[in-house]
Amino acid sequence: MNNFDTICSISTPQGIGALAMIRVSGKEAFEIVSKLFKDSKDFKAQPSHLVNRFDIYEDNALIDQVMAVKFFAPKTYTGEDIVEITCHGSHYIQQKIIELLLQNGARLAKAGEFSMRAFLNGKLDLPQAEAIVDLIDSQSEVAHKLAINQLKGNFSARIKALRDQFVELAALMELELDFSEEDVEFADRSRLNQLLHTLKEEVFQLTESFKLGNVLKTGIPVAIIGKPNVGKSTLLNSLLKDDRAIVSHIPGTTRDTIEDNFTINGTNFRFIDTAGIRLTDDEIETFGIERTFKAIDKADIILYMIDISEASLEEVEKELLFLENEIDFIRKKLIIVANKIDQLNELPKHFTEWNKYDIAFISAKRNVNIDDIRELLVKHIEQQKITETTLLTNIRHYDIMLKIEEEINKIETGFAQQLPTDLIVVHINLILNCLGQITGEITNEEVLGAVFSRFCIGK
Amino acid sequence: MNNFDTICSISTPQGIGALAMIRVSGKEAFEIVSKLFKDSKDFKAQPSHLVNRFDIYEDNALIDQVMAVKFFAPKTYTGEDIVEITCHGSHYIQQKIIELLLQNGARLAKAGEFSMRAFLNGKLDLPQAEAIVDLIDSQSEVAHKLAINQLKGNFSARIKALRDQFVELAALMELELDFSEEDVEFADRSRLNQLLHTLKEEVFQLTESFKLGNVLKTGIPVAIIGKPNVGKSTLLNSLLKDDRAIVSHIPGTTRDTIEDNFTINGTNFRFIDTAGIRLTDDEIETFGIERTFKAIDKADIILYMIDISEASLEEVEKELLFLENEIDFIRKKLIIVANKIDQLNELPKHFTEWNKYDIAFISAKRNVNIDDIRELLVKHIEQQKITETTLLTNIRHYDIMLKIEEEINKIETGFAQQLPTDLIVVHINLILNCLGQITGEITNEEVLGAVFSRFCIGK
Repeated sequence: MNNFDTICSISTPQGIGALAMIRVSGKEAFEIVSKLFKDSKDFKAQPSHLVNRFDIYEDNALIDQVMAVKFFAPKTYTGEDIVEITCHGSHYIQQKIIELLLQNGARLAKAGEFSMRAFLNGKLDLPQAEAIVDLIDSQSEVAHKLAINQLKGNFSARIKALRDQFVELAALMELELDFSEEDVEFADRSRLNQLLHTLKEEVFQLTESFKLGNVLKTGIPVAIIGKPNVGKSTLLNSLLKDDRAIVSHIPGTTRDTIEDNFTINGTNFRFIDTAGIRLTDDEIETFGIERTFKAIDKADIILYMIDISEASLEEVEKELLFLENEIDFIRKKLIIVANKIDQLNELPKHFTEWNKYDIAFISAKRNVNIDDIRELLVKHIEQQKITETTLLTNIRHYDIMLKIEEEINKIETGFAQQLPTDLIVVHINLILNCLGQITGEITNEEVLGAVFSRFCIGK
Repeated sequence: MNNFDTICSISTPQGIGALAMIRVSGKEAFEIVSKLFKDSKDFKAQPSHLVNRFDIYEDNALIDQVMAVKFFAPKTYTGEDIVEITCHGSHYIQQKIIELLLQNGARLAKAGEFSMRAFLNGKLDLPQAEAIVDLIDSQSEVAHKLAINQLKGNFSARIKALRDQFVELAALMELELDFSEEDVEFADRSRLNQLLHTLKEEVFQLTESFKLGNVLKTGIPVAIIGKPNVGKSTLLNSLLKDDRAIVSHIPGTTRDTIEDNFTINGTNFRFIDTAGIRLTDDEIETFGIERTFKAIDKADIILYMIDISEASLEEVEKELLFLENEIDFIRKKLIIVANKIDQLNELPKHFTEWNKYDIAFISAKRNVNIDDIRELLVKHIEQQKITETTLLTNIRHYDIMLKIEEEINKIETGFAQQLPTDLIVVHINLILNCLGQITGEITNEEVLGAVFSRFCIGK
């Protein structure tokens, strides 16, 4: 266990509330906090995990009546002695208590410093620490589940399994090295190739999962496109508004609105500003504008909206053909939204019988069948088979996995070129090093600084 | 003890943070919370005041790993069984836990409902409950001290002492009533008059203290006036900027900026928008504009600013005479700020020897002697003798005290007119009723609704 100095921080959200919590961690946590209390003897004698009331005084003036609890090292979040002080949530009191802690020898914690200590003291590995940031940031059920899985150590377990397999590969190759005099080399190589191939598949699966994982974390990008006045804004507002209503019915949980985000069945969708098309309602010619293509290109799902009271199937198919020529739809989902059904007596047969695309017949204005769009969105996500399998969601991990892919390719080439074993083992060692960087077994201050600076103060 | 249903609420400030706290209070608090935890048996067996870790699951999906502590009634804030759950501070988790509590039989607490229960269960009297709102709102040391004093029960004690004295007065009068046959009435009345006079003084002192108390709570209103280009904005910025710098040096405590507020030695000052004069730098003639007078009228302290590189004493005295004719300065403090001393080689003797007013010689532009103004402001406040004595800070209390004053006047008149004792006792009973309304011994739903709606959710 390290023997760090004592840090303190407000750990609850900024602002005024009924209560706020201040955390103190480090070798002198108990000693420093006791100096704030009138009944410092009682606090010193207080056992671990027991909450009691204390009065904080400054120069005989009562600052606040607080609840305080000690957590004895090493069974704590940081692995160190910790005190949690729950005070009244005024700015003045929060600030005053922090000031008193500083005066008595604590120092302000940097962003993520509590969690960094947890990592350095072996309470968490690096992916688990990174999961805590994601957990606190998570706005949707899916983002939350991804973070919880990583926090539970599922991701680390998979990385460690991968590591064990590479260690086995290295061991087999070194065995081969030992017997190299006996000319058994080539027979073994095919077996090694087999193992390498399996590993490559697994690494590829993980890197491929990054796009989905990242998209699930930040929201699945959706673009609404279509001619002017087909009702794009009305639809957007309708999708967003319902969500707002759901979210804001519990006081105290009104979230910082992320512009144009909405949640269906716990999955977060994020509208991409399709510039010209969505916002300024330019002519169809804006499809030609490059920046619009770029925006559409970022989307995973495209809601292609038509005015069914006016559009002809022929014209729509022509437009779609034009779009498909310009944009790569292989990894995108196209949903046709046929709007303004309220202006028709019955739906045109050539559209209802048109099976080429998923299509929703709606009236954005009258709020009819909007749920059909939601269902199509959810169906699409479910088809992507988001199971409990581990997904790569962290860009740091992704970058390292890409490097591992490179090294695997070099090993493959090495096998093909029948390079000497010791030259190939170099690459395996590089891979093992990479995997250690992910879990944090191999690390340096720069990496730690980058990881923990993403944290909020107080965590 | 009442037997209320179970309420829950997020008690920490809104938003995202490392941690958040959810409070549950009521007869089924333990039962309901236990249903959220995987180890519900452990939670049920957990003794009071002990913190332990629990996992919250929904349909086999881990929602969060939290810390939870039970507080057994009646030694709790509300007087009821309470659970405090400390969770990770994401919106999703906070909202989810609240949802789960609601599903299991709790309901959302209304603003101030925890404190209302504390009051109804006799844990706090009404002024103490009201002090909690002030405590949470307090932005300055003085406002904080006023709230703490009230929370400690100092104000209630004084009201109760007052009540005892009125009870004594009533007793004496009823004694007189008993002996009225014996014609001792008038001798007693002079003694009663004496007692009444003392009480009147005390009530007057309290109502008088309201202005100061209220002003200390919300900030002492200060106006900066003077001709165009004397440097009013520069001075204002300088006073405000230094304060901002002091306040914002501790991360996590940056307060919601109250426009034009600054703190000196823990006392909060609040700049009054003097409309024409301060902002638009009109000519001196704007002194004639009524709205400007109104603004000055609201100020307790007036910083009258002159450009000492240009102004003549004669002219300044003429302006001040004009001001004093227009505005009632009896309860205001006038401080002369002689600006632009950097443009002079030495200070003009007729100003330095001018003893009629407090004067500060400064350069707002070069930030010279700004502290002299601060000292004069503080000196003025200290002269008002803000001691530990009880101040009336709450408008509800103030309104009731004004009514008590009225009743005292009626009693005085009654004595003078030698009205029968029983007619006078009616007024004493009204006063006792009023005092009971302050402490909350006599109350009704409407009053309670008004008092507790000022609270934030979760308190």
